Amino acid sequence: MMKQKRFLLNESELPTHWYNIQADMKNKPQDLLHPGTHQPIKPEDLYPIFAEECARQELNQTDPWIEIPEEVLDQYKSYRSTPLVRAYGLEKVLDTPAHIYFKNESVNPLGSHKVNSALPQCYYCKKEGVTNVTTETGAGQWGAALAYAAKVFGLECAVYQVKISMQQKPYRSMIMRTFGATVEGSPSMSTRAGKDLITQNPNYSGSLGSAISEAIELATTTPGCKYTLGSVLSHVSLHQTIIGLEAEKQMEMAGEYPDIVIACFGGGSNFSGIAFPFLRHTILEGRQTTFIAAEPESCPKLTRGQFRYDFGDESGYTPLLPMYTLGHNFHPANIHAGGLRYHGAGVIVSQLLKDGLMQGTDIPQTEAFKAALCFARSEGIIPAPESSHAIAATIREALKAKETGEEKVILFNLSGHGLIDMTAYDSFISGDLGDYKVTDDEIAKNLEAVPQLI
Amino acid sequence: MMKQKRFLLNESELPTHWYNIQADMKNKPQDLLHPGTHQPIKPEDLYPIFAEECARQELNQTDPWIEIPEEVLDQYKSYRSTPLVRAYGLEKVLDTPAHIYFKNESVNPLGSHKVNSALPQCYYCKKEGVTNVTTETGAGQWGAALAYAAKVFGLECAVYQVKISMQQKPYRSMIMRTFGATVEGSPSMSTRAGKDLITQNPNYSGSLGSAISEAIELATTTPGCKYTLGSVLSHVSLHQTIIGLEAEKQMEMAGEYPDIVIACFGGGSNFSGIAFPFLRHTILEGRQTTFIAAEPESCPKLTRGQFRYDFGDESGYTPLLPMYTLGHNFHPANIHAGGLRYHGAGVIVSQLLKDGLMQGTDIPQTEAFKAALCFARSEGIIPAPESSHAIAATIREALKAKETGEEKVILFNLSGHGLIDMTAYDSFISGDLGDYKVTDDEIAKNLEAVPQLI
Repeated sequence: MMKQKRFLLNESELPTHWYNIQADMKNKPQDLLHPGTHQPIKPEDLYPIFAEECARQELNQTDPWIEIPEEVLDQYKSYRSTPLVRAYGLEKVLDTPAHIYFKNESVNPLGSHKVNSALPQCYYCKKEGVTNVTTETGAGQWGAALAYAAKVFGLECAVYQVKISMQQKPYRSMIMRTFGATVEGSPSMSTRAGKDLITQNPNYSGSLGSAISEAIELATTTPGCKYTLGSVLSHVSLHQTIIGLEAEKQMEMAGEYPDIVIACFGGGSNFSGIAFPFLRHTILEGRQTTFIAAEPESCPKLTRGQFRYDFGDESGYTPLLPMYTLGHNFHPANIHAGGLRYHGAGVIVSQLLKDGLMQGTDIPQTEAFKAALCFARSEGIIPAPESSHAIAATIREALKAKETGEEKVILFNLSGHGLIDMTAYDSFISGDLGDYKVTDDEIAKNLEAVPQLI
Repeated sequence: MMKQKRFLLNESELPTHWYNIQADMKNKPQDLLHPGTHQPIKPEDLYPIFAEECARQELNQTDPWIEIPEEVLDQYKSYRSTPLVRAYGLEKVLDTPAHIYFKNESVNPLGSHKVNSALPQCYYCKKEGVTNVTTETGAGQWGAALAYAAKVFGLECAVYQVKISMQQKPYRSMIMRTFGATVEGSPSMSTRAGKDLITQNPNYSGSLGSAISEAIELATTTPGCKYTLGSVLSHVSLHQTIIGLEAEKQMEMAGEYPDIVIACFGGGSNFSGIAFPFLRHTILEGRQTTFIAAEPESCPKLTRGQFRYDFGDESGYTPLLPMYTLGHNFHPANIHAGGLRYHGAGVIVSQLLKDGLMQGTDIPQTEAFKAALCFARSEGIIPAPESSHAIAATIREALKAKETGEEKVILFNLSGHGLIDMTAYDSFISGDLGDYKVTDDEIAKNLEAVPQLI
């Protein structure tokens, strides 16, 4: 008989807690520092920006399991579990002995994993009496998810979208407006941060770092408004562990355990989400698994950045974060994987990378799109340009397994679909897409602006 | 505790047979007639156009259950079962005592139910030695599904897409090209049928009827090429019964049976798919269920067409079909629900409508989009403009239930998502969309051209 292809959990089997890896890490992430005083940040310092519960989760290094509020679990049940799929079609095309599985987060509301954190962030805001939320977004996956979650919990929502992504993917801002959100291209003239950037460089097409500055400024200058973030921070990674916790149970149903876990990497949310629950077994039980974060060649903070205290945003509004960074003024090339155009890595991932518990790999844009086409044609899902980096890394590993003849079990996270990114596919098929390798000089120049605190 | 929201089947519970309602109908559909001789069509007459197995299925009025080939079932297992979802969010917004369920076909490869028939049609073609398939497509849902299915079974694929839809939804032709298909706007200059139409009316923006003519002409004039159709015909409806057969089991898991089953209506494939398995119980056991097909006000063949022998295409290449029609030369308004812009109804549905076993209802375009926004904001899924007609009809019924205080159980088919239709949403939100009610005169004028055989 045919083998089972998809694995799904019943509602009663859904995880009821998120996994907080900070509690289990031997080397904890270093303190976040106040940008003015350079003193360690306490949760209270973050209350003016974030929902208070998110601020507490951010710095929680003691509790390994955080209960998912019933209201959030109720929303998760509208779309979770997502399927774990054995990619027989891809395996066949690659002619590999590897067993390839993917967690399909592309069938979520709004088409990506981002909604997993948008829902709790909006829930906590609502519970604490907040009326408005704001955020930045690159490709628009996070902004769309937040627009929906805000609607669910009855909050107003304003999104700063990186200008180049807004132009590349006009449908995503339409999606946000469909959910009733206000969308502004960043850098905009509506904040001091935006005005400053436009003054310095009128043609600047924006980055996640600059959009974050604008959203934080709006939140801190608007009564009843809080800022939310779609990646980088530890509480976002926490919420995303729902992905890996489900995948763990589903891999068990498939009777396998991954030798390699792969996800694309922008700020770290989907990588953390799929990897941390499996990393738990590596940390606590010494289980041998390789964890690979696939970043774009044009924005290589994991493979070529430095571990430094740096700002999370371009204008220096955030706390100083101990992280692998290319410098907060780094302007990534205009690749289509807008969600990966970010200069730094989250603090947990940075510590794990420093400790050799995971690795980064960088993927040229055209290799990512080639992998995307291969996956689409064999599995019927057009992946997001971001997720295509994970697929490219998976294909590399599957072909290595073919060379060695090993039956490696590979699990990757399909973080989102690419239906809003069709112009990128059109450009690739027409031969109009190129690669963007950053020079060492460019990286060194940007790192000069980073404080020397480590 | 919270009630269960989503119902899914294990792979072992998936239906292994499609349901052929023709075998159980008391009044069988009347014969299809040869366009030249007006003699009843036999399967052999259809072999030059369709896969032979599809031709036999088309005219099979004896076998109620048709086995799904293992190769097709294997492909179904990549994405099926689709979730049956209780729409608690929508119920809450409408404040209705009705229990609303939807079958979510939007999470299928390519985003709609169309792949359910594309896979078997391509499988049969491949098995019979065909090398190329061709088809027409409106909004592009069917063309995209066929492009994928052709790739799965190793066939070349050429699609004629209605010109207006191609302009409204440029991403869908990019999707088809991503799967390696050739896409041509219809009417095109590549066929005699297309040339004739352009000569008569150089600005004609096309219809499904004209695109069908072009595809049939290509198939019949190209060696090794067969035509495939995404709706209207009985074998397409047969394949789509997988939807209703799953839904039947899933409703049982939910402990309910629908009082009302609703789907949008273009040629009938998604309506047939969800309705026929439940209609079986009405026909065989006298179960009381209301079946509602929601068509656009601008293309009202069920509510205002006539039951006549008419052609399935604009140029008169198909057999004469006994069906409710607005006339094969009817040119529907350029509404965004491109998949519903078709002049006639499938022969099975037409007979069922004639016999009072189902009913049609017509929905103005703006009511459909209003319903779509309401659904998106409460359930997190942006529906296709086509599917929005089903949602509008569902909302009407749910509000009726509110008036009467009845706990009606409503099941509708969410045939696809609307992520490729965002310009339509943008137009609606900007107040730029209108309604298009057809005049009686226009219908009468078009019906004059239809042969008087009934």
